[in-house]
Amino acid sequence: MIDAAAVWEHLDSLAKPRRSLGRLEETAVRLATIQGTLRPLVRPRRLVLFAADHGVVARGVSSWPSEVTGLMVGTILAGRATSSALAAARECSVRLVDVGVASPPPRSPPEFFRNARIAPGTQDLSQTPAMTSAQFDSAWDVGAEEAQRAVDEGNAVLIAGEMGIGNTTPAACLTMLLTKLPAEIAVGRGAGADDAVFATKRKIVTEAAERATPLLERDARAAIASVAGFEIAAMAGFFAAGAQRGATLLVDGYVTTAAALIAERLQPGVARSMIAAHRSAESGHSVALAHLGLEPLLDWGMRLGEGTGALVALPLLDSAAALLRDVAALSDLGVARED
Amino acid sequence: MIDAAAVWEHLDSLAKPRRSLGRLEETAVRLATIQGTLRPLVRPRRLVLFAADHGVVARGVSSWPSEVTGLMVGTILAGRATSSALAAARECSVRLVDVGVASPPPRSPPEFFRNARIAPGTQDLSQTPAMTSAQFDSAWDVGAEEAQRAVDEGNAVLIAGEMGIGNTTPAACLTMLLTKLPAEIAVGRGAGADDAVFATKRKIVTEAAERATPLLERDARAAIASVAGFEIAAMAGFFAAGAQRGATLLVDGYVTTAAALIAERLQPGVARSMIAAHRSAESGHSVALAHLGLEPLLDWGMRLGEGTGALVALPLLDSAAALLRDVAALSDLGVARED
Repeated sequence: MIDAAAVWEHLDSLAKPRRSLGRLEETAVRLATIQGTLRPLVRPRRLVLFAADHGVVARGVSSWPSEVTGLMVGTILAGRATSSALAAARECSVRLVDVGVASPPPRSPPEFFRNARIAPGTQDLSQTPAMTSAQFDSAWDVGAEEAQRAVDEGNAVLIAGEMGIGNTTPAACLTMLLTKLPAEIAVGRGAGADDAVFATKRKIVTEAAERATPLLERDARAAIASVAGFEIAAMAGFFAAGAQRGATLLVDGYVTTAAALIAERLQPGVARSMIAAHRSAESGHSVALAHLGLEPLLDWGMRLGEGTGALVALPLLDSAAALLRDVAALSDLGVARED
Repeated sequence: MIDAAAVWEHLDSLAKPRRSLGRLEETAVRLATIQGTLRPLVRPRRLVLFAADHGVVARGVSSWPSEVTGLMVGTILAGRATSSALAAARECSVRLVDVGVASPPPRSPPEFFRNARIAPGTQDLSQTPAMTSAQFDSAWDVGAEEAQRAVDEGNAVLIAGEMGIGNTTPAACLTMLLTKLPAEIAVGRGAGADDAVFATKRKIVTEAAERATPLLERDARAAIASVAGFEIAAMAGFFAAGAQRGATLLVDGYVTTAAALIAERLQPGVARSMIAAHRSAESGHSVALAHLGLEPLLDWGMRLGEGTGALVALPLLDSAAALLRDVAALSDLGVARED
C-alpha cells in the first residue's frame, strides 16, 4: 500500500514541470491512494442504476407523476436514456435494478435488468415512516450484492445511479438529518419544481426531517429508513460493500450523495473510497460533499441523476490513471531544472 | 445548417428534465452550431504538436534551459510524454512538427514527426524582432498545411499543442499586444519561474509589448511577428485553416490561446470554431479567453502545455455528442410534464 506522499513523489519525478497539471494530479493522488498503487485501474467500470418510487409524490413534491419512473425504466431497458448514451460513450457496463417501482415490471427484460422489488414504492414519508428497518436492510442488501457482483466481475470503478420520481425529497430529508443542514439550503428544485411544488416540498421535507432527528442517536437505521427511498438505501449498501471490496466509488449528484452520507454514517470510512464526480445544481449538494470530505471534479450545474454526472466525469479518472502509468521520468531525459 | 435555438429545441425534446445537464448542454449547443448539425462528430481527432525554441531564453525568462525543448521532442517521439499518455487514453492521433527547435533534429524519427524548421529558434525578442514577417508567414503556412492534412484525413476535432521552453514569454507579449492587458496580469510564472526569473520575465515582456504596440495598427503581422514564436505562429495558421475547413478547434492553455488571438486578429471569425478546453493557472488566460468570447470547460489549474489540457477536456465533447445523438425523445415515452 502507498500513501499520498508516495504518489506526489512519483508525480514530481515525471517529465513535466512540477505540479503543472493542477486538479488532474490531485485526482491521480486520490485514485492511487484509494487503490493503494501507483498503477490504479479505471477499467472495467460498472454503472448500477437503482429505480424506485416514492409515496410522497402523491403530495405534489414533483412536477412529474410517478409513472415516469416506470417509463424511464423502459427507456433505460431500450438503451435510449441519457445514462445509456453516456455509458456507451464511456465504455461503462450498465445494470438496472428495480428495488421498488410502482408500475408493473417489464415483460421479458434484457439480462442487465434485475427485479429486486421491496415494495411498489415507499410509504408517504409526510405521514408515516417511508419504510421499515427490515425493508431498509433488504434494499441495502440488494445494493451490496450488486457491488459484490460488480467487483467479482472485475470492475475497478463503481458508479451508482438512481431513477425515482420525487427522490430529491428523501435526499433533502436525509441531508438535513445527517448533516444538520437547514431546509433553506437542503431543499432545491430537483428536476424542475415550480414555485408551488417547491413550497410544498420544503414544508414536507422540514417536517419529516424534524420528526426523524430525535430518533437518530437512538436508532440511526430507523431514523434514516423513515425518510429514505429504496433506491437510496440500495445505493448506500452498494457503496459500503464496494468500499469493503476495494473498489473506487465515483459518486454522482445530490440523491446519490445522500446515499453516500448514509453509508458513511452506518459504516464509517466508506467515504475514503469515494471520488465526487460533480457539484450538482442542488444547493445542498456542496454541503453534503464537504461533510464527506469530497471536492467535486466538475462544477457543471448538472442535476439529471441516473449517474449521468459521474459518467461525464469518468474519463477524467482515465486521464489521471494514464498520467501515473505512461509518462517518462524526468531522470530518463538526463536533465535537471536550473534552480 | 442549424443555429443554437434549433439545438436547444432538440435538447429540450429529450427524455430528461429540461436543461438538467448544465454545461454539458451548453457544450452540446456549441459543438453542434460549430459543425452545423445535430449529429456533430468528435472522432477521429488529431493533436498536432508544434515545437520551437526562443532566443529570449538566453535572458533568463525560464527555469529550464532551451535544451529541454529538444529532450521533450525526443520524449514525445518515444511516446512517453504527458501528451503521449493522454492522447493514447483519448484515442487521439498525434503529429509532431519541428518549426524551429535549436537542438539537432532527431535521426530516423517515426512517421508522425515532420521537420519544418524555419530557423533554430527565434531571435531574442528583448533585443530585436523575434522573427521577420516572411518567417511568420512560413510558420503560419506550416500550421495551415497540418490543419488541411488533418481535415483531409477525416479528423473532426483538431487540437494544437506546443513544446518550447520559454514560450510563455512570447505568449504574454502577444496577449498584452492583442488584448491590451497590463503586464501585472499578462505575465505569469509559466512552467514554474521563481521570483528572480519572474521579475526578469515581466520586465522583458513589458518592454517588448510596448515596442510592438505602435506598429500594430499599421502592420499587425509585423507587430505580432516581432514578439511571437515559430510554434505560436504555426498554431495560428493551424487554427485559421482548420476553421476555414470546418473543423472544430479545441483550444488548450495560455500559449495556444495566444495563437488563437493571432488567428482571430488576422482572420476574424476563426474563434467561432473554437471551444476552450480549460482555464489555465496563468493569470492572463481568462482575459485572453474572454477576448475570444470563450468560456472554458474545466478550471483545473493546469499549465503544462503540449495540448494536455485539451486532451483532458476532450472526452467532455464525446459526452456532449452522445447526448445529442443517442437519447430518446420525451414524446417517445408518451408522457408530458404536469405543468
